[in-house]
Amino acid sequence: MLHFADRLESAILRCGAPAVVGLDPLVELLPTELTPASTSLAAQAAALEAFCSAVIEQVAPLVPAVKINIAFFEAAREHGVAAFYRLVRAARQRGLLVIADVKRGDIGSTARLYARGHLELLGGDEADAAATADAITVSGYLGESGVMPFVEAASRTGRGLYVLVRPSDPTADVLHEFGGSEPFYSFLAQRVAAWGADQRLRGASGLSCVGAVVAAKDAESTRALRAAMPQTPWLVPGFGAQGATVESVRHCMLSGVRDGDRTSGAVINASRSVIFAFREPRYQQEFGPDWRGAIGAACRAFVEELSSLRQR
Amino acid sequence: MLHFADRLESAILRCGAPAVVGLDPLVELLPTELTPASTSLAAQAAALEAFCSAVIEQVAPLVPAVKINIAFFEAAREHGVAAFYRLVRAARQRGLLVIADVKRGDIGSTARLYARGHLELLGGDEADAAATADAITVSGYLGESGVMPFVEAASRTGRGLYVLVRPSDPTADVLHEFGGSEPFYSFLAQRVAAWGADQRLRGASGLSCVGAVVAAKDAESTRALRAAMPQTPWLVPGFGAQGATVESVRHCMLSGVRDGDRTSGAVINASRSVIFAFREPRYQQEFGPDWRGAIGAACRAFVEELSSLRQR
Repeated sequence: MLHFADRLESAILRCGAPAVVGLDPLVELLPTELTPASTSLAAQAAALEAFCSAVIEQVAPLVPAVKINIAFFEAAREHGVAAFYRLVRAARQRGLLVIADVKRGDIGSTARLYARGHLELLGGDEADAAATADAITVSGYLGESGVMPFVEAASRTGRGLYVLVRPSDPTADVLHEFGGSEPFYSFLAQRVAAWGADQRLRGASGLSCVGAVVAAKDAESTRALRAAMPQTPWLVPGFGAQGATVESVRHCMLSGVRDGDRTSGAVINASRSVIFAFREPRYQQEFGPDWRGAIGAACRAFVEELSSLRQR
Repeated sequence: MLHFADRLESAILRCGAPAVVGLDPLVELLPTELTPASTSLAAQAAALEAFCSAVIEQVAPLVPAVKINIAFFEAAREHGVAAFYRLVRAARQRGLLVIADVKRGDIGSTARLYARGHLELLGGDEADAAATADAITVSGYLGESGVMPFVEAASRTGRGLYVLVRPSDPTADVLHEFGGSEPFYSFLAQRVAAWGADQRLRGASGLSCVGAVVAAKDAESTRALRAAMPQTPWLVPGFGAQGATVESVRHCMLSGVRDGDRTSGAVINASRSVIFAFREPRYQQEFGPDWRGAIGAACRAFVEELSSLRQR
């Protein structure tokens, strides 16, 4: 299978914007017609799945990738987890790349097991292989020995990983700021660049299969992180509802910041502002009960907003 | 429901040792008779479940708790995760406390979802509530805003959590050692003590529902961590196969290190040395193909070895 970063770059070129829609569904925010009739976990999982299937239908022609956050499905335990894997498969069948936002991390011997479940092509069963995401998010907390099992699995299977370097929630920086003169995220950024530096981990574009989750904050710190990780694909969370803007994410891209570079180098994720657009007054006015239409329109607006990032 | 730490302490008193058996099953190490006939994930999950059910039967009369590591089940995706929840329920029905080793962690809004799935009594369905573990392990990487959703859920439901402070794998200390003069784990230890300090989070013994995973290393650093977290229950990994000994774990206990304290304050986990005892020559000699007998004998030896920790 082609290198993850190359597949993603082709999809970005095709769609015209490095836009990722995040599936973070909450039962309490679903359209009325999908509200589960019972509080059972099976009913909740079925409602989440029906909603996300509809979102996938709307966004598949528009964006290169979706990010599916497993936490929202684990809240419905095994029922939710089964729905999660069906959605990974469904999105890939519709031609989307899938980033599984799982934030897994443990010591090496245990990380190997997480890597097996989330990045390997399992069991010789076609359906299992089709439910393997194109990339996952991981925690870098336990250092090289905890991350390498994911790197090895990704490089074997043409998949990718994004190590959480700087989260979108500013209050989550308490521990990241530990260390005084150097913030923890800049220490971690150097490690992530080193873990992915091997030529065998790079695709045709030069980008590694070892990526980073980096929230866009002030231009100066973002540019410093970009310089520390020149070959690292980024996943940038927090667009829209969480406050990132086109101006703040501009410094995350490679095209524009590196002279003559035509590689995007980053994808930008919006979750709530797209999937729950039907709850916003301006979309309600236009679409009324047509929540699918509102999601499609919000996704088109998101792509349009990001398309300027490709033109620099 | 009674406070988690009080329930655990009663169980330790009843069994005579703060011993926890870790269920970290690997398909490739199962007894021959349980080796799955097919490579399908459903068959692998069924084999893991059959094996762990037998381990639970053997150890339930002997130890206060089991620790079930979800990574080993996630390797078989939704099939494994369903087996994981059935095992949590089965172990609790046999009178064991269950620590779900999930190492979850994310920003606060996402952590709330993980807390819902792993610590809440869900959906009003008896079977779901019975599959809620007594405690879980979490990552402390994202600071207070990422940990508090777990603390709130645990305190509402009489459950506990163990924040990963110092892992058993020495090579996992790369990032933990970041910061120069102060190791990251000692910085984190102070935070964990503070997150659990509120009187409303404490049980009758004075221990908090906010615990810590702390590997036993040299006596000096362990004693310093114990002093920094005087009200924090510990989960100590790595006994047996990973190198921790009765002498190294002694400094993790409260009884013995605090004058007159009758509270254990820590549980000690052994995984491979108990559940895969039937693969070791000395047990093979005595038990031959009776792998269940070997596991029971190894568990009794483990409890006997730790019983001296209660007598100080």
